[in-house]
Amino acid sequence: MIIIMKHGATRGEIDNIVARVEQMGCQVHLSEGEERTIVGIIGNGRPIDGEQFSRMSGVERAVPVLRPFKLASRDFHPQDSVFPINGVSIGGQQIIMMAGPCAVESREQLMSAAHSVKEAGAHVIRGGAFKPRTSPYSFQGLGHEGLKLLAEARQATGLPVITEVMAPEQVPLVTTYADILQVGARSMQNYALLHAVGESQRPVMLKRGMMSTIEELLMSAEYILSHGNNRVILCERGIRTFEPYTRNTLDLSAVPLLKQLSHLPVVVDPSHGTGRWELVAPMAMAAVAAGADGLIIEVHPSPETAMSDGAQSLKPARFAELMVSLRSIAKAVGRTI
Amino acid sequence: MIIIMKHGATRGEIDNIVARVEQMGCQVHLSEGEERTIVGIIGNGRPIDGEQFSRMSGVERAVPVLRPFKLASRDFHPQDSVFPINGVSIGGQQIIMMAGPCAVESREQLMSAAHSVKEAGAHVIRGGAFKPRTSPYSFQGLGHEGLKLLAEARQATGLPVITEVMAPEQVPLVTTYADILQVGARSMQNYALLHAVGESQRPVMLKRGMMSTIEELLMSAEYILSHGNNRVILCERGIRTFEPYTRNTLDLSAVPLLKQLSHLPVVVDPSHGTGRWELVAPMAMAAVAAGADGLIIEVHPSPETAMSDGAQSLKPARFAELMVSLRSIAKAVGRTI
Amino acid sequence: MIIIMKHGATRGEIDNIVARVEQMGCQVHLSEGEERTIVGIIGNGRPIDGEQFSRMSGVERAVPVLRPFKLASRDFHPQDSVFPINGVSIGGQQIIMMAGPCAVESREQLMSAAHSVKEAGAHVIRGGAFKPRTSPYSFQGLGHEGLKLLAEARQATGLPVITEVMAPEQVPLVTTYADILQVGARSMQNYALLHAVGESQRPVMLKRGMMSTIEELLMSAEYILSHGNNRVILCERGIRTFEPYTRNTLDLSAVPLLKQLSHLPVVVDPSHGTGRWELVAPMAMAAVAAGADGLIIEVHPSPETAMSDGAQSLKPARFAELMVSLRSIAKAVGRTI
Amino acid sequence: MIIIMKHGATRGEIDNIVARVEQMGCQVHLSEGEERTIVGIIGNGRPIDGEQFSRMSGVERAVPVLRPFKLASRDFHPQDSVFPINGVSIGGQQIIMMAGPCAVESREQLMSAAHSVKEAGAHVIRGGAFKPRTSPYSFQGLGHEGLKLLAEARQATGLPVITEVMAPEQVPLVTTYADILQVGARSMQNYALLHAVGESQRPVMLKRGMMSTIEELLMSAEYILSHGNNRVILCERGIRTFEPYTRNTLDLSAVPLLKQLSHLPVVVDPSHGTGRWELVAPMAMAAVAAGADGLIIEVHPSPETAMSDGAQSLKPARFAELMVSLRSIAKAVGRTI
Repeated sequence: MIIIMKHGATRGEIDNIVARVEQMGCQVHLSEGEERTIVGIIGNGRPIDGEQFSRMSGVERAVPVLRPFKLASRDFHPQDSVFPINGVSIGGQQIIMMAGPCAVESREQLMSAAHSVKEAGAHVIRGGAFKPRTSPYSFQGLGHEGLKLLAEARQATGLPVITEVMAPEQVPLVTTYADILQVGARSMQNYALLHAVGESQRPVMLKRGMMSTIEELLMSAEYILSHGNNRVILCERGIRTFEPYTRNTLDLSAVPLLKQLSHLPVVVDPSHGTGRWELVAPMAMAAVAAGADGLIIEVHPSPETAMSDGAQSLKPARFAELMVSLRSIAKAVGRTI
Repeated sequence: MIIIMKHGATRGEIDNIVARVEQMGCQVHLSEGEERTIVGIIGNGRPIDGEQFSRMSGVERAVPVLRPFKLASRDFHPQDSVFPINGVSIGGQQIIMMAGPCAVESREQLMSAAHSVKEAGAHVIRGGAFKPRTSPYSFQGLGHEGLKLLAEARQATGLPVITEVMAPEQVPLVTTYADILQVGARSMQNYALLHAVGESQRPVMLKRGMMSTIEELLMSAEYILSHGNNRVILCERGIRTFEPYTRNTLDLSAVPLLKQLSHLPVVVDPSHGTGRWELVAPMAMAAVAAGADGLIIEVHPSPETAMSDGAQSLKPARFAELMVSLRSIAKAVGRTI
Repeated sequence: MIIIMKHGATRGEIDNIVARVEQMGCQVHLSEGEERTIVGIIGNGRPIDGEQFSRMSGVERAVPVLRPFKLASRDFHPQDSVFPINGVSIGGQQIIMMAGPCAVESREQLMSAAHSVKEAGAHVIRGGAFKPRTSPYSFQGLGHEGLKLLAEARQATGLPVITEVMAPEQVPLVTTYADILQVGARSMQNYALLHAVGESQRPVMLKRGMMSTIEELLMSAEYILSHGNNRVILCERGIRTFEPYTRNTLDLSAVPLLKQLSHLPVVVDPSHGTGRWELVAPMAMAAVAAGADGLIIEVHPSPETAMSDGAQSLKPARFAELMVSLRSIAKAVGRTI
Repeated sequence: MIIIMKHGATRGEIDNIVARVEQMGCQVHLSEGEERTIVGIIGNGRPIDGEQFSRMSGVERAVPVLRPFKLASRDFHPQDSVFPINGVSIGGQQIIMMAGPCAVESREQLMSAAHSVKEAGAHVIRGGAFKPRTSPYSFQGLGHEGLKLLAEARQATGLPVITEVMAPEQVPLVTTYADILQVGARSMQNYALLHAVGESQRPVMLKRGMMSTIEELLMSAEYILSHGNNRVILCERGIRTFEPYTRNTLDLSAVPLLKQLSHLPVVVDPSHGTGRWELVAPMAMAAVAAGADGLIIEVHPSPETAMSDGAQSLKPARFAELMVSLRSIAKAVGRTI
């Protein structure tokens, strides 16, 4: 932590800061320039909360030196985290494809989607049983019934299943049926939920909040990791900006940035990230070129009758075509799908 | 709902839309221009989900005609909602002041803050017992112990108490101690929590998410209202923008806009809204001038030792000065404090 | 400037930085912590460009210590800048009202607007002769003809006139007719234009770009000031955010922040800042409560026939009512209008 | 244009709208639902300005049906625009690489950069002679001298040259030396400049403003096209968001979206788009995978001594490596470089 004093800060103000720092068991390094005095804090290795200083008399601002995340950082764990999920390995040389409908609507719909994505080469089936919806009047998902159908789809295809969990008390139930727990964008800072999935010891895919910074995403991952659950997958799914033509702005630069800052696998969701099915294929291809470890894509047997997010879902035939294109891109970057 | 067809949409594509609309039990109104065909849907009074249409062949986009919120709207309830909270009435001619520390830290700190804000004329005591923190390593609040201290402060001052509830399972506990339940900005779309506070039948102050539109705030209020809990207070607390000098950008235009769209009382939080104590007083004054029904302000006996958000907390003496200024502004707009 | 080295930066990398700093004629202050080395640069009083360091080997990031603006800063000029404009004084105790139509459309329209705003108590007439329009097919303003009409309105009412100048080569012409030159939001970083108005020695009102930070606004003011033109007025007119209900998000916290960082007068434009006439009055009142030195408001004799921005223009009668409300607020904050 | 009336709009209010529409020579199509009346305007093919209606009594809002751009739209010109620039063809099967230093600093620096990018396979040399800088105290470019050096580099390498033009009066001078005129992000809505480059009949690369929508970019292109200059290249270079780790957020979804809406070639600038050299290669590769027609990349012989934007510049050796990777990706999407 570095404290930048105001122009004209008094001796007494500086002494107060020094006293506070020493009280914390840290050392002080003072640098008195012509215009400003800078107080450097030499810590004991733990992040220091700068807020207390920024309010003290004579202080202009406090600048953190260390990143606030630790377990999630590449400094802490220099190698890529690679971990197996029911026979699939994520974070390694192979790119993992997760695909399926936004919401589980019926046995027929889910089975049809599951078989077609398996045939096209997907590794994981996605499908929502509990759906976070802006409106209380929208379809909220089939709930427990949906989870049972997902387990059936796993049985039928042999593929592991990912589904969203929305509240801490749902974790035991969802864990019974799903292989990967998804924490959705709106829940990224639902700390009670992060605790619960941290304790579940199941792989967790954590989606970036639509207005969350990269650092906040890593801090939320830190919550899960600090419970001893090391199998965390990060997911970029678009952020909110001023642009109205797309539902969100897919921030693909987050992919190489997260790979640089952290050891955790990074997955991209081009379906929610754009909100328009015509943009899903080009952005999926771009994500692989940028270094993503996996993709999660909405596929629906008949998008025009979908109960949620039909506008961003691919038809099975288009998904199969996309898989072909993705294999070419993967090969160009030295990976496989 | 209005469906705008693509340039060159075929007869068959238009017929498909018409068939779908009629299947929903709605009527169609067709308008064929030189360049585009427009399909108007004459509904049965309920909002229609436009997404299903936006994915159909030949459709360019679907434009909703009705606002998606109902119980929260002024169309539904033309008069201002005014309701009593332990002797205080919110939403009426009087402006309600809520004040106290960001987090409850100790009996001494809370009692000192509670007495000083009461003396200055505040109507409600605020204080966090459960704290949502970006970092798992930051102070997370005193929990149950903090709630007991809040109840003690209520006893000592006679003022009602507002505190945050972060998870559905905390609702019964928090309800035992608090007069108003606060749903924080990061929880605005925590639907399980909205259900729980909706059923609690306690007054709820719902803070706008830092990434949430006005419409999404009203939709979250709709969740609470749809459980029969009519005592919802909306709170503007700043949105996230590109500007780095302030922690958030306080969107004061939300105040007159919410008052126009909805009947619910609107409170402003200039402490979180700016993140800098020097800006709290001018923005509090501006909020009252813009028509706010209340303010929630952080006051701490010694902000420089605060365990959270010290940089945005006022000292008791400054808060007392601010109350004087606010009374002048309130008078100028024909209200009292 | 403070340079934060990467974890594990080598001796050689640190030495390179030190050598570069000394080459610049600055002194170095080294602080070697357990985890990081920090290089403090003790400058010669001028802002240092940190970019060159952020690219050097072993550097994590460079943190500026000094604000990059100088002439615009309150450190440089501690008193408020107050300056006269044709009999009106801005920046002092009196709040200055600028009002009139968005665009000058005809003699009749302008004269009608000018007389009515004068009668209501405005101090300056606004009106656009050159209009920046998103579409090449929209009305682009009356140009030179519009300037002549503005001069006529000045003659008839005795009030000074403010109008926008869009290109360097227009400056001499506009200077012939106008008392205050307006640099619009889209031109805030049109550096050729900033040079030209800096040399014009006319008072300039500089509008914040809809995408510009407070710091960038002050840097653009610095361009004008550095040409010896001290009469610069800053104008907050709303920034672009994700919120679609308003045209822009009026950032009123910019008012106290700019007054704190700079000595220049600050004016608020609630018409462009909200884009909706119903929000103009509450936001104008809020601006005065927040400490604005002036307001610029669109008034049109018949907004529904306006050739631009009718949706945000007030009718003369509403403007007169607003003036009454504003006088009450001004009095409450110890000022006059 | 569709006019949505307020709930409870009167007969008289509706009649007023109808009268206004008929006065404009357009036809009306009325749709009276239970809750709302909708007024459809059947136009004469030209975009209608909806603002005048949104201010009329009884109107809730006006929804445009047609896109406001025409010459830039794919409806108007269904085939991709492909055009030659001194022997290079842009918009076709080949991906065009533009590379060179951010600013021209000296003959030595430019020649070194020019030869190395040519050797690596670039098609166009970039380099700034007039530099838009936030601070009046930063290096502003070599001006005319820089243009002469660029012409020399063209002579020496045989490659065409692109450079920025910042003001209308610079257009004739820059046209003398450069093959492609660049309109920078901060000038995207500098309409006087758009006029001037529109009349220059030189190819123009128009960069998206950092807070401009896709639609505004196309409207600015429309300004240039409406002067008869058909050789316009669109450039995505990152937009401003809340994320602080990157200088801008590169919006790659703009690439397929622009290709869908418009016939003009689309180039991506990953250097400004990220602001960090480590992200340039992955984002360049992603851009090609997403369908970009070209890339513009900053290459500097010694980035750590660069006078501007060193942090985002590649060294020549890294650029040469990147070219190899890009060729693989181009091949995977059926294109060449």
